Amino acid sequence: MSRVDVRKEAAELAEFWSQKIVGEANGSLFKVAKGIGSTNWNSHDDQDEVFFVYKGRLTMQLRDGDVVLDEGHMFIVPRGVEHCPKADAEVHLMLVSPEVTSTEAGGKPAWSYRTGRASEVG
Amino acid sequence: MSRVDVRKEAAELAEFWSQKIVGEANGSLFKVAKGIGSTNWNSHDDQDEVFFVYKGRLTMQLRDGDVVLDEGHMFIVPRGVEHCPKADAEVHLMLVSPEVTSTEAGGKPAWSYRTGRASEVG
Repeated sequence: MSRVDVRKEAAELAEFWSQKIVGEANGSLFKVAKGIGSTNWNSHDDQDEVFFVYKGRLTMQLRDGDVVLDEGHMFIVPRGVEHCPKADAEVHLMLVSPEVTSTEAGGKPAWSYRTGRASEVG
Repeated sequence: MSRVDVRKEAAELAEFWSQKIVGEANGSLFKVAKGIGSTNWNSHDDQDEVFFVYKGRLTMQLRDGDVVLDEGHMFIVPRGVEHCPKADAEVHLMLVSPEVTSTEAGGKPAWSYRTGRASEVG
């Protein structure tokens, strides 16, 4: 039982679109992520996925149109709905769902790379 | 499936420590609230309760000490743990748990009152 600084956790992430678990409650994982560019289109039949934008702007591409999410905006992608988040500039997120979804099959693009913090490389 | 502006929702709340449901995913409710002063001590054996601070500062009083939560901080109160949130100045929160917990039995203080927006009174 400890305090989580969501902004600090997101800033320290070393890889775009990876999800770091920072808490668990009632069967859901609370995860931070940062992204830039686009993920892959994906959907998951077993879980809804909640996005909170903490910093920057996320465009949630959906098959029937885009939804632009700015700081302080939340968006729930219901299970089964195809979606593809993208960000023109770095965006920091909180994600809530029962499992980690950003495997390659679940959205993380193949080009995702380590951002090269000195403490992380070499 | 729509975008929720968490900050706007919190700002528009008419009563302190009441929870407004703004989304549901994977069996959890996503709720906004604002508070000032102290709630009652409470605990709930059937659900963990997640607090995010969006604006201001929340002090989570626990039986073994206080935890101060500033903007961008998250804290999970596990089921069964007694807690009593307080705020010296108005604080805006996002809460996540399977049920609404801020009934009078669950924490909302008896003095909570409508803040008197013109559209809400009279």
